[in-house]
Amino acid sequence: MTLIPMTKQSKIKAIALLTDFGLKDGYVGIMKGVIAAINPNIPMIDLTHHIPPQQIWPARFCLMNAYLYFPKDTVFLAVVDPGVGSQRRSVAIECSQGYLVGPDNGLFSGILAQYQAKKAVSLTNTDYWRVKDVSLTFHGRDIFAPVAAYLASGVPLEALGEVISIDSLIDFPLQFPQITDEKIQGSIQYIDHFGNLITNILPHHVKNKNWSIVINNQKIQSGLTYSDVPLGEMITLIGSHGWIEIAINGGNAQEKMQLQWGDKITILFK
Amino acid sequence: MTLIPMTKQSKIKAIALLTDFGLKDGYVGIMKGVIAAINPNIPMIDLTHHIPPQQIWPARFCLMNAYLYFPKDTVFLAVVDPGVGSQRRSVAIECSQGYLVGPDNGLFSGILAQYQAKKAVSLTNTDYWRVKDVSLTFHGRDIFAPVAAYLASGVPLEALGEVISIDSLIDFPLQFPQITDEKIQGSIQYIDHFGNLITNILPHHVKNKNWSIVINNQKIQSGLTYSDVPLGEMITLIGSHGWIEIAINGGNAQEKMQLQWGDKITILFK
Amino acid sequence: MTLIPMTKQSKIKAIALLTDFGLKDGYVGIMKGVIAAINPNIPMIDLTHHIPPQQIWPARFCLMNAYLYFPKDTVFLAVVDPGVGSQRRSVAIECSQGYLVGPDNGLFSGILAQYQAKKAVSLTNTDYWRVKDVSLTFHGRDIFAPVAAYLASGVPLEALGEVISIDSLIDFPLQFPQITDEKIQGSIQYIDHFGNLITNILPHHVKNKNWSIVINNQKIQSGLTYSDVPLGEMITLIGSHGWIEIAINGGNAQEKMQLQWGDKITILFK
Repeated sequence: MTLIPMTKQSKIKAIALLTDFGLKDGYVGIMKGVIAAINPNIPMIDLTHHIPPQQIWPARFCLMNAYLYFPKDTVFLAVVDPGVGSQRRSVAIECSQGYLVGPDNGLFSGILAQYQAKKAVSLTNTDYWRVKDVSLTFHGRDIFAPVAAYLASGVPLEALGEVISIDSLIDFPLQFPQITDEKIQGSIQYIDHFGNLITNILPHHVKNKNWSIVINNQKIQSGLTYSDVPLGEMITLIGSHGWIEIAINGGNAQEKMQLQWGDKITILFK
Repeated sequence: MTLIPMTKQSKIKAIALLTDFGLKDGYVGIMKGVIAAINPNIPMIDLTHHIPPQQIWPARFCLMNAYLYFPKDTVFLAVVDPGVGSQRRSVAIECSQGYLVGPDNGLFSGILAQYQAKKAVSLTNTDYWRVKDVSLTFHGRDIFAPVAAYLASGVPLEALGEVISIDSLIDFPLQFPQITDEKIQGSIQYIDHFGNLITNILPHHVKNKNWSIVINNQKIQSGLTYSDVPLGEMITLIGSHGWIEIAINGGNAQEKMQLQWGDKITILFK
Repeated sequence: MTLIPMTKQSKIKAIALLTDFGLKDGYVGIMKGVIAAINPNIPMIDLTHHIPPQQIWPARFCLMNAYLYFPKDTVFLAVVDPGVGSQRRSVAIECSQGYLVGPDNGLFSGILAQYQAKKAVSLTNTDYWRVKDVSLTFHGRDIFAPVAAYLASGVPLEALGEVISIDSLIDFPLQFPQITDEKIQGSIQYIDHFGNLITNILPHHVKNKNWSIVINNQKIQSGLTYSDVPLGEMITLIGSHGWIEIAINGGNAQEKMQLQWGDKITILFK
């Protein structure tokens, strides 16, 4: 592990962190300690550490929605890693907006569906690992955090390992809705802290149309913002993340509807 | 959105963040990404993101108690915003200690009860928004975060929009206790992580007096610190935030007493 | 409280924070505000704030496991403080890797079992407190945070108070397992976010041996990483923190086994 000299720090990148580690045990703090030990001047921004354990899908969703809002060249360090210690590859990817570091298990495929990957490497150069004799259960600490720190400090992508084909990266494709002239059949792809039910349907499908959602035989009218309906009433609208969502003004739609990821919804036009 | 040149950064202010977003979905991380994209050198300090959804009252309490301890000129960026997308104003306020940015819904009225507002603006200048075509459901990302970033970077308050009357700001006044020579009738205004029950009664009312609290027909004697009573015993004392609180040494008073915000308590003198 | 002039900041140390405050009330944010008010350039890294209220043992475990991964000279600011306001001492300790600031109640004894303390002081110099008239219930804000900020800013340890004997520091020793040629009898010392059951047994005891764990009359075979067994199966292995742990591949061992801290386990050799 090499300390980056201060004089080379003219263009330090930020690191955005996403894990399923929770905040209880200090695992995230340890990763940040490893980064700061390599370069104390790297800004670190938590995206979230509350991805449900080993769930790729919500991590993919969260990364995809956040990516655009970060400084150009930000290094996204994402560790949701059910296959740690197995044969799954560790990768770093350069794409049009920045860099991605983590296991090659589909975590980044939501970002890569929108932003073209330019180059990818398998993290085989142990010079940029924390130690050569890494833990078999915590690559976040021993491989991904140090690699992200070096990348943020200016080490070129190619130095981190052997170049791999972009087409070989594991893809975890979005399930697209079925669209006809009369309706769209989609599903819930995420449920947020407020209980808003976020579908897999994009706004351009309903543009300039009068639309509503049917779910559990209940019809919910569309609007523009939560307060377009009285307190406690349901509404469907285009969410801030760019997907159609179902919400309750001042309430929690998930608690009322008891829906799960993957549950089906139908958009009707009239 | 304009990037602030490095040479103008001689006096960057810190931003303190408070929201009801939770930490699960990346919404807070996105706001920080927006801030860092405008100016990567702004220090950001989380106050809390676990305000119960859309509850102004605990947010007001938390802001009021924290304000004093932050560096002078800190920008408080607070987003608990049940009226997002409606006609409620977005505001920035300069007061004696620093700056406040958020919806005009009473969030800051605890701070403003203690520190005189000097000047306030309605955030109407879209040059300092992230985009002109903002989301109707996430002003935290599109208006408040970028405005706070520009303010922290040195943009003057007046540039952010039209000056409004300080008296026109929404006020959410504290409910004061009823005070006689024999007793004070107050209420629980906040319950913290340790289960300490924080009343709306200030210490000067009990100064130099022998006092106790009666709650649910139980009398609790006053002391100075938790360990003035044996482990597991109840005590009432002046909390670190400057309000009279009820606690259990080594335990959780809320779990034992099952009280809620707003529940009545009585202080007796003898 | 003195502001540290910018020109003296050539060697600022990072502060790592651990508390049992949770993130709901802003108490941690207030401590960070106090630190930033003294010196806005100190990097702050959260280790965890979710130590169960007033529990020294998991705090000790978390500090001990994290310590090694932080930059040399990091100041560990740890506040789990059931005796706040009582006669317990407030201390700062210099050891081989860095500095420790907090109550003298055994919090740091896991670190000090591995890294020799060089010097310790009792925090009696009120010049480095936030105010002389401190709260009797929140020394984190009024004593520990400002002391850590000054230490991180270059104030020498000796300036913070009177030197005390290292041997006088409260020790909270690890319970060592009982070891014979046939077996090791140990216990669960920590359960993490993933439900992994972490024992008090170090890997060198099982080196080059064929070993398994018996718990609740169930025998669990050892392996190297989670995916050495099929999804849903139990495994025992050497965890990333350097202790032997019990886990389920893709699952939660705690939910399945319902074990608690202190529960006994046996390692068998064959």
